[in-house]
Amino acid sequence: MKIDVNSDMGEGFGVYQLCDDEALMQVVSSANIACGFHAGDPAIMTQMVRLAKRRGVGIGAHPGLPDRLGFGRKEMAFTPDEICQQVMYQIGALQAIAKCEGTVVSHVSFHAAMGNMINRDVALARQVMLAIHRLDPALIIFSQPDTIIEQAAKSVGLAGLTLFLADRAYDATGRLVPRGKPGAVIQEEGAVRGRVRQFLQEGTVTTIEGHHLAVRARSILIHSDTPGSLALAQMVRSEIEACGSVVAPAAEVLQQ
Amino acid sequence: MKIDVNSDMGEGFGVYQLCDDEALMQVVSSANIACGFHAGDPAIMTQMVRLAKRRGVGIGAHPGLPDRLGFGRKEMAFTPDEICQQVMYQIGALQAIAKCEGTVVSHVSFHAAMGNMINRDVALARQVMLAIHRLDPALIIFSQPDTIIEQAAKSVGLAGLTLFLADRAYDATGRLVPRGKPGAVIQEEGAVRGRVRQFLQEGTVTTIEGHHLAVRARSILIHSDTPGSLALAQMVRSEIEACGSVVAPAAEVLQQ
Amino acid sequence: MKIDVNSDMGEGFGVYQLCDDEALMQVVSSANIACGFHAGDPAIMTQMVRLAKRRGVGIGAHPGLPDRLGFGRKEMAFTPDEICQQVMYQIGALQAIAKCEGTVVSHVSFHAAMGNMINRDVALARQVMLAIHRLDPALIIFSQPDTIIEQAAKSVGLAGLTLFLADRAYDATGRLVPRGKPGAVIQEEGAVRGRVRQFLQEGTVTTIEGHHLAVRARSILIHSDTPGSLALAQMVRSEIEACGSVVAPAAEVLQQ
Amino acid sequence: MKIDVNSDMGEGFGVYQLCDDEALMQVVSSANIACGFHAGDPAIMTQMVRLAKRRGVGIGAHPGLPDRLGFGRKEMAFTPDEICQQVMYQIGALQAIAKCEGTVVSHVSFHAAMGNMINRDVALARQVMLAIHRLDPALIIFSQPDTIIEQAAKSVGLAGLTLFLADRAYDATGRLVPRGKPGAVIQEEGAVRGRVRQFLQEGTVTTIEGHHLAVRARSILIHSDTPGSLALAQMVRSEIEACGSVVAPAAEVLQQ
Repeated sequence: MKIDVNSDMGEGFGVYQLCDDEALMQVVSSANIACGFHAGDPAIMTQMVRLAKRRGVGIGAHPGLPDRLGFGRKEMAFTPDEICQQVMYQIGALQAIAKCEGTVVSHVSFHAAMGNMINRDVALARQVMLAIHRLDPALIIFSQPDTIIEQAAKSVGLAGLTLFLADRAYDATGRLVPRGKPGAVIQEEGAVRGRVRQFLQEGTVTTIEGHHLAVRARSILIHSDTPGSLALAQMVRSEIEACGSVVAPAAEVLQQ
Repeated sequence: MKIDVNSDMGEGFGVYQLCDDEALMQVVSSANIACGFHAGDPAIMTQMVRLAKRRGVGIGAHPGLPDRLGFGRKEMAFTPDEICQQVMYQIGALQAIAKCEGTVVSHVSFHAAMGNMINRDVALARQVMLAIHRLDPALIIFSQPDTIIEQAAKSVGLAGLTLFLADRAYDATGRLVPRGKPGAVIQEEGAVRGRVRQFLQEGTVTTIEGHHLAVRARSILIHSDTPGSLALAQMVRSEIEACGSVVAPAAEVLQQ
Repeated sequence: MKIDVNSDMGEGFGVYQLCDDEALMQVVSSANIACGFHAGDPAIMTQMVRLAKRRGVGIGAHPGLPDRLGFGRKEMAFTPDEICQQVMYQIGALQAIAKCEGTVVSHVSFHAAMGNMINRDVALARQVMLAIHRLDPALIIFSQPDTIIEQAAKSVGLAGLTLFLADRAYDATGRLVPRGKPGAVIQEEGAVRGRVRQFLQEGTVTTIEGHHLAVRARSILIHSDTPGSLALAQMVRSEIEACGSVVAPAAEVLQQ
Repeated sequence: MKIDVNSDMGEGFGVYQLCDDEALMQVVSSANIACGFHAGDPAIMTQMVRLAKRRGVGIGAHPGLPDRLGFGRKEMAFTPDEICQQVMYQIGALQAIAKCEGTVVSHVSFHAAMGNMINRDVALARQVMLAIHRLDPALIIFSQPDTIIEQAAKSVGLAGLTLFLADRAYDATGRLVPRGKPGAVIQEEGAVRGRVRQFLQEGTVTTIEGHHLAVRARSILIHSDTPGSLALAQMVRSEIEACGSVVAPAAEVLQQ
């Protein structure tokens, strides 16, 4: 079985770096590249595209709200039209850089507050997906399963790839346990490996309440902006390979 | 004869506007749209693309240096790679917005300091033109005649469109008389009309020294950031039509 | 009777200008100068300080949220500490420019979303006022009457100056009728003059429902970012003088 | 003998951090705090001021050019007036934050390109120093010895503190050997310690040519944006103390 491992990348700016992008690029199969609004700049984007191309990593746009100071984590009252325009702008910028480097953008993964705003509003989600479809109908939309984003992508004919977080607790409804709560983040290596194995072999996760819940996901998301993200990514990848699965970018996962 | 009239457009930002873009869009045949670095933002870019599409105006990218405070007028020591990446980023952003609106970007016109830097450096100009050619070989490059930019575009196989400034004095070498000098800017309406007529009928301009000089140009550039730019544009257009010529976007001018 | 006329000023950025600051500075007695976050930059701030000093206009800081694209009109989830720090930063920047020009900052008027956020939260308002008091206990706080900001300023020992809007309708509770609603903005010159006169002579305003309501205000606010603001300011000033009152900056109004 | 150890601090932005400011603050006696133009923001500035106050570290403004993307390292053609205004703005912002925290700004150290521009232009340097003197005549100006900045500060009556770099090679003229050249950066611990000791005991440095050269300096500068800066700072401090000298902030060093 092919499974994708993805992470947000290129989230530095100028002299700043948020994680060891070069090392992380050795481990993931899909890179969600910041596009210059919440983070990233043309030089970093180009560097990410070159690294991804060299390693066969899928190139994704990771658009966010225009707020560098807040790293795109604060919601801002933009109109649906403005959100759409910001998404187009950012994907287009990365597409041009990719094209100039002889490759293409294959997927889209929304960042933080922009993602939350789209994922809460059916009409906005549909408008954004229609715009993305007009831009390039081959773009794959990354999202949590059973979300407004997933449904909107499907409804306009865009392929979707759903995500599983191996180091985060889920509740009985399939939602992530909020970070503040006890047990929300799983840090013990054996436990994370066990969850990857269970996900691959049974397609389930053990909820925080202790029940097995089906997880419909094709990619494992590694948060790159937390300490230890590189080690987590390496652990996830090695466990996937130990289980006999193959780490592959989104487009290959969807074709199998 | 078909002749283009172009102007820099969409050079506002957020609540700010630099000129009456909507009125100016009624007069020009090519709009050089700021792409969010020295000026412009996704909302303004979208509005410009919509206005241009509705009026049959050619849509151009107007990339500049990443310096809003200085409006892209200050040179900054970026590497050739960085300049290229900034050009790709900005054209790509506008391409995506245009595609989403059902139209395309047809030309590129460099802004201020970015243009000066490219126009002074043969190697940089060639690198930028190669990148643009990889992005879209149909893009038309606007420039002054007999410049490094014009030659670099030609050398990589990109079409060029050369510019004439009807309200600016030229010297015997074909260069613009710098703004500070006496007689550099022609403001009297009859004089400007006369220069448009002479350019259309004879293909010449009377230099500041009083000689007729051949002007190899296919488009008249109106600076939108000077007072009276709208009136100047209207005057130029009416004189073109009075001379029996037709105002048409770059692609049509090149096909005749 | 002395009455202040104030307006937000210096809300341009780089090449952009929002209103004719130089002309408006001839009419007002207090200038609320943007401090480089939602608008303004060191050059514009310096120019405003020089103009104000020359005309005897009171110099005020007009701090806003760090969001140029949205002109500080969008609320953003900053912590109370962060809001305080942003207020300190901006007032301090203007104080230094004023000191270098041989003058001082005399008042503070909060901009748009920053003002709304402070005016809704008693604890935040008190924290901000305590910080301002530590910075300079002589600073005068501009606000609408009977607001959280007015009360917080008073509670920490800061002087306040309350505002009246001559061109906006009030309801029976003393609140402004929202801009969208019919009759919210009074545009007819005679009507505006009549409201200024009634305010000066009776200390009342006729509400949208037709009743006379007491208005406890010592300054008339002119919104500079609406068309016709200069004419409105001139009309208000001439009516004040026609009524035998004197236009004077905040500090003088409070001393009478 | 008292000697100052200073470093540039708070040069992060939003989520980004450039070095371990908290650890470095344990070692230095003067902190040059970025003021929000090339780096830093109100939250980081406040955090730096609090850390410095708690440790008795001297608080300095570290103004730079308004260019976050380039980290203030690129020269930009600002007028002398504009440079002055930017310096005032940034020092004032930090002064207000310091005052609100119950402390004061004691010195100024210019960042990168802004410093280079001021240090090359006698008239600009004098204008900047006059402005700083008007703002606060007690501010101490940090600079290399025998520079335009040092002389301009002295000529207007501002105290200066001169810097020595323990890990950089000097040539016979007392200039730093440019970073690119062989031997420009001294990395071996024993060598650095030896240079600190020689500087403290003899007031000299051994130039790259092998001669002893007098070094008139009262502070050792640690570049915080290079790897190993924390370890270098600790080594320098421990060697100072091993030599029987005392690490103390600029004001104390000047009073001895």
